[in-house]
Amino acid sequence: MQNGSLLAAVDLGSNSFRLEIGRLEHGQIRRTEYIKETVRQGSGLDASRNLTQEAMQRGWDCLARFAERLAGFRRSQVRAVATQTLREARNRDAFLAQAHRTLGFPIDVISGTEEARLIYQGVAHLLPQSDEQRLVVDIGGRSTELILGQHVDANLMASYRVGSVAWSMRYFPQGALTHEAFDEAELAAQAVLEEALDAYERDRWEVAYGSSGTIGAVADIVAAAGGPAGLITREDLDRLRAELVASGHVDKVRLPSLKDDRRPVIGGGLSVLRAVFDTLQIDSMQAAQGALRHGVLYDMLDREQPVTDMRSTTVKRLCAKFDADAAQAARVAAAACTLLRQLRHADDDQVLARHERKLSWAAQLHEIGSTVSHSDYHKHGAYILDNTDAPGFAAHELHRLGQLVLGHRGKLRKLDIDFGDEPFVHQLACIRLAVILCHARRDPELRGLQLSGGDRSMTLKLPAAWSAKHPQSAWLLREEAAAWQKTPWAFELG
Amino acid sequence: MQNGSLLAAVDLGSNSFRLEIGRLEHGQIRRTEYIKETVRQGSGLDASRNLTQEAMQRGWDCLARFAERLAGFRRSQVRAVATQTLREARNRDAFLAQAHRTLGFPIDVISGTEEARLIYQGVAHLLPQSDEQRLVVDIGGRSTELILGQHVDANLMASYRVGSVAWSMRYFPQGALTHEAFDEAELAAQAVLEEALDAYERDRWEVAYGSSGTIGAVADIVAAAGGPAGLITREDLDRLRAELVASGHVDKVRLPSLKDDRRPVIGGGLSVLRAVFDTLQIDSMQAAQGALRHGVLYDMLDREQPVTDMRSTTVKRLCAKFDADAAQAARVAAAACTLLRQLRHADDDQVLARHERKLSWAAQLHEIGSTVSHSDYHKHGAYILDNTDAPGFAAHELHRLGQLVLGHRGKLRKLDIDFGDEPFVHQLACIRLAVILCHARRDPELRGLQLSGGDRSMTLKLPAAWSAKHPQSAWLLREEAAAWQKTPWAFELG
Repeated sequence: MQNGSLLAAVDLGSNSFRLEIGRLEHGQIRRTEYIKETVRQGSGLDASRNLTQEAMQRGWDCLARFAERLAGFRRSQVRAVATQTLREARNRDAFLAQAHRTLGFPIDVISGTEEARLIYQGVAHLLPQSDEQRLVVDIGGRSTELILGQHVDANLMASYRVGSVAWSMRYFPQGALTHEAFDEAELAAQAVLEEALDAYERDRWEVAYGSSGTIGAVADIVAAAGGPAGLITREDLDRLRAELVASGHVDKVRLPSLKDDRRPVIGGGLSVLRAVFDTLQIDSMQAAQGALRHGVLYDMLDREQPVTDMRSTTVKRLCAKFDADAAQAARVAAAACTLLRQLRHADDDQVLARHERKLSWAAQLHEIGSTVSHSDYHKHGAYILDNTDAPGFAAHELHRLGQLVLGHRGKLRKLDIDFGDEPFVHQLACIRLAVILCHARRDPELRGLQLSGGDRSMTLKLPAAWSAKHPQSAWLLREEAAAWQKTPWAFELG
Repeated sequence: MQNGSLLAAVDLGSNSFRLEIGRLEHGQIRRTEYIKETVRQGSGLDASRNLTQEAMQRGWDCLARFAERLAGFRRSQVRAVATQTLREARNRDAFLAQAHRTLGFPIDVISGTEEARLIYQGVAHLLPQSDEQRLVVDIGGRSTELILGQHVDANLMASYRVGSVAWSMRYFPQGALTHEAFDEAELAAQAVLEEALDAYERDRWEVAYGSSGTIGAVADIVAAAGGPAGLITREDLDRLRAELVASGHVDKVRLPSLKDDRRPVIGGGLSVLRAVFDTLQIDSMQAAQGALRHGVLYDMLDREQPVTDMRSTTVKRLCAKFDADAAQAARVAAAACTLLRQLRHADDDQVLARHERKLSWAAQLHEIGSTVSHSDYHKHGAYILDNTDAPGFAAHELHRLGQLVLGHRGKLRKLDIDFGDEPFVHQLACIRLAVILCHARRDPELRGLQLSGGDRSMTLKLPAAWSAKHPQSAWLLREEAAAWQKTPWAFELG
């Protein structure tokens, strides 16, 4: 990314959708534009966790406006992420397909821990440099993230299903603000947050920061009442609860600094914030400027370089955690990338490097499912990737990686992939061939092998006498040719 | 089990169903009866891996004959196990339900590694005592097990999807015996077995034993030709392949010692055996007397005592492997069992002890899914239990354990359980209550708590002031009462 480039992040949150556009200036990103719309999609989940048609339409309408602003941006300049509401919504695929078309850019649904990591990135990049141990809290519409970190490194991340929109709907359904409702809402939030007790205990951090709309709104109220700007204390929260209960109903709250779009969810938001203070024994919290969208922007810079790409770190950690055979993983990765370079030699270098990196990740991970059982380990590997916490990855990226792991052996028809997606089919073919060629768990003899591609076809040329020297590999390659016959692609041996 | 008791094992194999009845005599089991029927159910899997109606009927008919012989046996005296064909068959539940009714005893589908472990038990118990390092090979109709062990301990187990029935169908479909067919069949079997290369390499064992019909049949042919009884060498296998190819077709093979029921599957069986010899560099193999069914009988004795019950060992190993919090697991297990004893105080001691053991296993395992992700860890735990290698357990036992893990928190309707199964519902309630009472990951205050049961109802009495002292637990218990309202059961706080 060149100095002066524009970058854009879209955050499809449960309460608001936000668009942040910044200019890259010597490693820093300076805001050039910020738009926030209170879409409140998180209140549009019905009892069976489907987004209502109205909630989807509100989202699409907002994205259409964002799209106008993003006209002329290239794909590499924009990243859109979606969080808890779309993590939960059963019909999210319907929403996302139309949303992609409307916005003009794909939307990554990210996991709760990935959201937490990006929030920390955003908060940390906008704070002054310091060695302090930080706790960062972000209360969203349907989830709350807790992160411990130092400098720009998030060291512990978690996401809990409590949030301002969800808690307002559940515990303050008609807008009535009573002590009983606050008691029940706070107990319920504490029950969810209690798991954080040990990991986030008081002596593991020095300063607490709060990101997100709820905390910003509370900080504004406190400041308007004469408190120090951006600082929230436990006493402030007691006073605010008392004031809200005294007013009796969200419509009657008289706090000039409380914006109208925050009013309907202040009961839920405050009760969650109070539960966070109680559970983690917080005395005071600083409102932070940085948020998820800033983390997304800085992560776009990190992803450009293999060495700073969090995804590479995550793949290494997963391999170690699930005790994969590192030598075999490296062997398969090297062979697969060699084949991919032959097959896609016409690609632009940067594009090829990106494909290689993904193929290499899949190869490194292809045996992690053995931790569950050797039998069907490719299926267990895909299950793990669909479900594990993988900092740096969006859900659909992990799913694609999982499909390469699932598809690295066995039948091809079982895969949830688009056989019209040539780069992906090429990656799939290369990992399968690499696994075959490394079948003896020894470095394979690749000299003279040549993989080439045509329209929906691939041909592997074997040198003379190769098959006689490697009868087992040759047999496996013949089986491989048969496997591709059940797909729209042909794989032939030459 | 008293001295002199009768025990019966039924082995529903892919080639044959077998019934072995033995009498317990001072720790040894002496045969009193043995019946084998060549049901060849493994050849009755159609292209979509469904058992054909005919194959099911052949199985039921055979079990009806076994049932006649087992009249008067109590449930604790009989164990029936099923292997590869029923592991694979998509419509196995239909077969098993009727089979259970016909036989009068439930049928445990066991995993490949569990089959391997039991085969080793059977082989080892019928061999003279020795310190030798053993390789045991069992070529079944649709799977082949390889085991390394010493004394009666299986140390390494694996199951591969190659077998006499499957290989005969695939590579000798019309019964023609040609060199080309043998070459192809042996290469294909080697490809599957190759994974065993490193783990089972030649210097890790001293003596090779072969169990199962294929190996018995080959040993008989060798002995009839004048070889030493029960010993098979590589030269014998070369000679036998040459003889079979010379005859040209299974119907024309003239070997008086080849039984008619073995004839149709000798091509597949021999090619797999030859592949095993080649892959593992075996020079000679002893035919063993013991087999799966003997292992099943000895395992019935082991299961009676907690200290010899392989399942307890497996649970400990899984907890360690998946890095569960041992202190919390022990705490939840203790609390759950305390509650179960209150609820089921009317049970016979032995029955209660059995229920407690299972509940304790579930409690020990309830957090193993965290290895995949903390979010939805109860689901990941159930996935692991449905898929992992768990020596000592049958598939349905693991599934029940997995349902307790899945059901230890959250909604109850998602569970794949029968709410009419009172002992199981009681276990479920106890693990849920124990998790709630241990929510702070500290030893809970159980004094004065009393759990009692009625017809589809349970009541937990709390001592005076308990709720005030434990507001969070009290809140969780009220939520728990609400959760049971969506089931046919009532849970009330008293």
